[in-house]
Amino acid sequence: MEFRLIDRIRERTALAREDVRLGIGDDAAVLAVPPGQHLAVAIDTLVEGVHFPHGTSPRDIGWKALAVNLSDLAAMGATPAWALLALTLPRADPAYVDDLAEGFAQLAREHGVALVGGDTTHGPLCLSVAVHGFVPPGQALDRGGARVGDVVFVTGSLGGAAGGLRLVQGKVPFDPADESHRALRTRLDRPTPRVRTGMALRGHANACIDVSDGLLADLGHVCAASGVGAELDLDALPLSPALRGVFGNAAARELALSGGDDYELCFTVAPASVGAMHAALAEVGGHATRIGLITEGHGVRAIGGAPLAGARSGWDHFHP
Amino acid sequence: MEFRLIDRIRERTALAREDVRLGIGDDAAVLAVPPGQHLAVAIDTLVEGVHFPHGTSPRDIGWKALAVNLSDLAAMGATPAWALLALTLPRADPAYVDDLAEGFAQLAREHGVALVGGDTTHGPLCLSVAVHGFVPPGQALDRGGARVGDVVFVTGSLGGAAGGLRLVQGKVPFDPADESHRALRTRLDRPTPRVRTGMALRGHANACIDVSDGLLADLGHVCAASGVGAELDLDALPLSPALRGVFGNAAARELALSGGDDYELCFTVAPASVGAMHAALAEVGGHATRIGLITEGHGVRAIGGAPLAGARSGWDHFHP
Repeated sequence: MEFRLIDRIRERTALAREDVRLGIGDDAAVLAVPPGQHLAVAIDTLVEGVHFPHGTSPRDIGWKALAVNLSDLAAMGATPAWALLALTLPRADPAYVDDLAEGFAQLAREHGVALVGGDTTHGPLCLSVAVHGFVPPGQALDRGGARVGDVVFVTGSLGGAAGGLRLVQGKVPFDPADESHRALRTRLDRPTPRVRTGMALRGHANACIDVSDGLLADLGHVCAASGVGAELDLDALPLSPALRGVFGNAAARELALSGGDDYELCFTVAPASVGAMHAALAEVGGHATRIGLITEGHGVRAIGGAPLAGARSGWDHFHP
Repeated sequence: MEFRLIDRIRERTALAREDVRLGIGDDAAVLAVPPGQHLAVAIDTLVEGVHFPHGTSPRDIGWKALAVNLSDLAAMGATPAWALLALTLPRADPAYVDDLAEGFAQLAREHGVALVGGDTTHGPLCLSVAVHGFVPPGQALDRGGARVGDVVFVTGSLGGAAGGLRLVQGKVPFDPADESHRALRTRLDRPTPRVRTGMALRGHANACIDVSDGLLADLGHVCAASGVGAELDLDALPLSPALRGVFGNAAARELALSGGDDYELCFTVAPASVGAMHAALAEVGGHATRIGLITEGHGVRAIGGAPLAGARSGWDHFHP
């Protein structure tokens, strides 16, 4: 059964790349990294009921499993190339697998990613995806490069995925006829990894991370890794009209600070490089909002205010 | 919690490699593939109750999760380098994670493998490991290279892991005082990936696979990929004394043909290369037994006999 399921996935994710010397179907894939490039690799797992709600469509699950991983590559400034998929399924349901593979393949095609290996096993619904990309030596956007005086930016808007999760959880009942509701569900189910933006940030950003655990938590990781602090202009946080419309300004801001799963990029740029950064982003159709500054000290606080990060912030999958 | 668990795993798996430019702890690892080498990558998942029995020790689980993946690299003739670990756990139990990391690290140290990325999530116990190794261009041992007239070999002995599983399942009650019982349990819980043997087979073997689904199933994959058949000398199958002692010759042979999880290498060698192959294996302390021949046609049969593979053989995780 394993082989036939993998064959179905392979058919739906077929994408020719010259650097794939031996693709899915053998004990291992054989791949050629371009000369002079480093390899960036990441792995992330999605578990039903933890990372996506029960009842999420298989197409959205397939998309999201790849999206959260491409977001990790984006946060390094890497160019995506190859993926591996380990799929654990309660039942060998070909139609379900086809839909899941199609969601995965949609996003893979968009970024030219080839599926080069996979494993299907029996068990509770769970997907681990490993992704591989290329980055020129010395140009990876790590978390440890933020400097005092850097300007803090974030792409897109924040809090939408957490808003979508609230709708799913019924705190505000989901209304499929409401355009704002649908927009927030899409933010949760179909995150957009900022791949081209991440690549455009090479040479401009000093530090970068993707917002998966929530802005406070993730900017906190940058601060900890860089040995700096940060202050945020809370009025500058980019909130979508849908989020403000459904939850009001105060709750929207809270979701933007602590909600997870947005998969936007948060990055820091030296003041002298801000203009060039904006120009580089504009070239790829990207956009980022200035939300704060890197300071001495540690932790994240509001401008002139107290530390924002409480004992817990963002997602904590062991204490949801 | 995720970060602290990953930190514990990182501490226990610390291994310096010059080619790891940025290790575990950022959005992605940054790695340098040696010039002139191709990259071999594989991913495999272990689910509790499917790939290892409930009650398996965390050290054995950690070991086995890496072992089954290194076995995939061995089957390609690749030199292992890096691993990623996606760990899903029902509870954030630090002692359990320490033990699991220690089992993983024991085997990783033996082969100089660095853990370069990880993800810990909440859910049913499940581990996905992705491994990366190097292989010179054109020398990967794929499944499709078997030629009519090739001699079929297998490393080590077969059926032991399936025998161990029978003991766990209580068909013959496990007796911890019985040395043969313990030996079979070890075959199940602590498989030995034939990494050095796989590397030594480069340039000697025409096709290679690791025996994870059972000899008939896996040799069948080689035949299908190569467009050939195979005949086996059933009297030549290497059976351990422990397996024959506990189950008798007939059942031992059946387990050797259809049992999974042995993680030995099955490979084919042109007759003119057999001597050089044996010499290359001897240099790394390896050993292989001649068990058959590649023939025209398709499928696997006993010498002069009927096809051996029934409708089902080996492990079928969706219909266990």
